[in-house]
Amino acid sequence: MRVRIPILKLNDCLLVSIQWELDDQTALQFQEDLLHKIHETSANGVVIDLTSIDFIDSFIAKVLGDVINMSKLMGAKVVITGIQPAVAITLIELGIGLDDVLTALDLEKGLEKLQQELGE
Amino acid sequence: MRVRIPILKLNDCLLVSIQWELDDQTALQFQEDLLHKIHETSANGVVIDLTSIDFIDSFIAKVLGDVINMSKLMGAKVVITGIQPAVAITLIELGIGLDDVLTALDLEKGLEKLQQELGE
Repeated sequence: MRVRIPILKLNDCLLVSIQWELDDQTALQFQEDLLHKIHETSANGVVIDLTSIDFIDSFIAKVLGDVINMSKLMGAKVVITGIQPAVAITLIELGIGLDDVLTALDLEKGLEKLQQELGE
Repeated sequence: MRVRIPILKLNDCLLVSIQWELDDQTALQFQEDLLHKIHETSANGVVIDLTSIDFIDSFIAKVLGDVINMSKLMGAKVVITGIQPAVAITLIELGIGLDDVLTALDLEKGLEKLQQELGE
């Protein structure tokens, strides 16, 4: 069975919760799926929840950085929630550009923040 | 990699979107994960979205019926959303008791319905 990460649509936002460590293939599949879903649903925002992830390797970090930038190119605001210390360290050390990415503590707060931003 | 279905927590509800056909092992793992998550988060409600599922076999139907009844036993209201024709037929033909389960067209409406119910 091919592993894919479900992407939930809630109003004009997409929700993704990554709850288990991704292998490279799953991460690339997720990237493709998310971009398709943004296109298909005309979503204005995406919340990616990493609460359960306590470690990412450099490949996954790069895919994550890429998917954020790609989503922005497609016009969707991205909020990343629940970044744990080790994940933050990896992202910064690798210079993954999360410059103007919104972050929040958890999914609820992320969704709130996104809806505020979109409402403005 | 063991396949598990992510369970998202949003306020006092849990959201699950099943987007690919489950194999038996994944379905049982999901049942266990969901019940644990209800316990862990003290969730009052669960929305299970089946929009992308156009067919279920009898084993999965039984697991689904079981997990709904188990969640109710644990005090969580369950809303099933996006049941497609073939899935409805399988559930009814197998006599899976979805008697007092709430249903809705999609995730948004399911969550709305759940929050109404919980608000009452």
